[in-house]
Amino acid sequence: MRLATLLTDAGARPAVHVGDHYVDLLATQADLPGSVRQILASGAEGLAKVAAAVAKPDAVKIPADRAKLLAPIQDPGKILCVGLNYRDHAIEGGQPIPTEPVLFGKFPNTLIATGDPIKLPKVSQKVDYEAELVIVIGKRGKHIAESEAMSYVGGYTVGHDVSARDWQFKGSEKQWMIGKTFDTFAPIGPVIVTADELTNPHTLQVSLRLNGQTMQNSNTKEFIFTVPQMLAYLSQVVTLEPGDLIFTGTPPGVGVARKPPVFLKAGDVVEVEIAGIGTISNPVIEE
Amino acid sequence: MRLATLLTDAGARPAVHVGDHYVDLLATQADLPGSVRQILASGAEGLAKVAAAVAKPDAVKIPADRAKLLAPIQDPGKILCVGLNYRDHAIEGGQPIPTEPVLFGKFPNTLIATGDPIKLPKVSQKVDYEAELVIVIGKRGKHIAESEAMSYVGGYTVGHDVSARDWQFKGSEKQWMIGKTFDTFAPIGPVIVTADELTNPHTLQVSLRLNGQTMQNSNTKEFIFTVPQMLAYLSQVVTLEPGDLIFTGTPPGVGVARKPPVFLKAGDVVEVEIAGIGTISNPVIEE
Repeated sequence: MRLATLLTDAGARPAVHVGDHYVDLLATQADLPGSVRQILASGAEGLAKVAAAVAKPDAVKIPADRAKLLAPIQDPGKILCVGLNYRDHAIEGGQPIPTEPVLFGKFPNTLIATGDPIKLPKVSQKVDYEAELVIVIGKRGKHIAESEAMSYVGGYTVGHDVSARDWQFKGSEKQWMIGKTFDTFAPIGPVIVTADELTNPHTLQVSLRLNGQTMQNSNTKEFIFTVPQMLAYLSQVVTLEPGDLIFTGTPPGVGVARKPPVFLKAGDVVEVEIAGIGTISNPVIEE
Repeated sequence: MRLATLLTDAGARPAVHVGDHYVDLLATQADLPGSVRQILASGAEGLAKVAAAVAKPDAVKIPADRAKLLAPIQDPGKILCVGLNYRDHAIEGGQPIPTEPVLFGKFPNTLIATGDPIKLPKVSQKVDYEAELVIVIGKRGKHIAESEAMSYVGGYTVGHDVSARDWQFKGSEKQWMIGKTFDTFAPIGPVIVTADELTNPHTLQVSLRLNGQTMQNSNTKEFIFTVPQMLAYLSQVVTLEPGDLIFTGTPPGVGVARKPPVFLKAGDVVEVEIAGIGTISNPVIEE
């Protein structure tokens, strides 16, 4: 299923994308969970109820071209990010292949939907793009075994880890988070494809276009750490909860590594596409 | 006012600490805000309503020795942390005084209350303590001027920034967050003292006792970055929201800097005290 969150007259509402329309779930059946996060947390049984509602002849449909999409998850408890996770990126940069993931975080103030503007901060001159696959957690877990990890995935979405390089590498301590957590720095969407439909996350083409020109184009088969490895590693530290988002690293081609470097400027449009999930497109404006 | 969150038969409920008891706000007056976060967001008018409810002759009182305290804020959108913020700590370590704050984050899975156990992770052998003053945001704001910053503070609480040093400094990238965001690594409380009562946060004695022995003892007059400076700096990056927590750095005396180093072990009890706010006390157990 393709789960979305729509802005309706009643506020943020969960929906399912089918063909050229979205089904407004609560308008169709009032006893369904009130958010995409709660739908994921409801497991296979909950997803079956949602699917049954979508199949009703009187399902309430909103044409796709009239739907206002929001970030599919509105209030994640955690946004965890894995850095340096593409083998082709490490090889390109002449870096050793990491033996453990590099981890950092973003806060929910970063989340925006496809179509929403990325705001260039007044205080940064080096805002860069990063295309990423995002794992959405569906089940609470700690110390998850790699062999069990896939059962904790609720689904996958497309993410853009916008990064202010001048803040990411600021000072002698170079703590990345602050350069990654500016308002609007995490476009996600357009939908979450549930894990029962997207069963293999390790063969997905991930690409990014800046004003129509392809800047990143790789495949999750280049992951250094697989989805089960990431979940096993992270859940040694934190209890993963439904709705938690895990950004899985970016492929080669980021702006800061180009000669000369490329940074985002007002008027740009950035599209991130993952085959089988969809495309998010965000204009860039001054704050 | 001294705002607390209690675990009652009705779940987590906001309360006010007065003398030897807590007033259960919703049991006293059902139309008050449903959480401490919402009380802070309601501003001076909301606080006046709460104060009026507390003063009622029929206010519902719970004796302090029978109250189960929870972390006073349950669901912050952000937990931002300033590192290296005490002048005496920098001088002791022979480090230059930073010209900009070092910033990292924790996620809400870290939050526990006074009395709750700090769990030593299976995967860390170097868990350390850090006493900290925590700012609780009361009003939404971006690009806050230093001269206006104090009006964005909802209150202050006592915090403990528990830190797994072997994870904090792991790998070549040394991203601190992952060593700081283990489950149970942010005891806070016992209450939030509202900013109308705690008007000067720059003269507070901050101390930490490990099994009764004083390990940290300094004063927020040693801050390198003041409360207004921290809020102005952070709000260049993120929109601050009611309930956001800002850990303000720790004074000298942490375990990793001692010779020989001191790390937490099962059976330890750590108390963090800030004059005018209170004391949090947490036993240490194996995960």
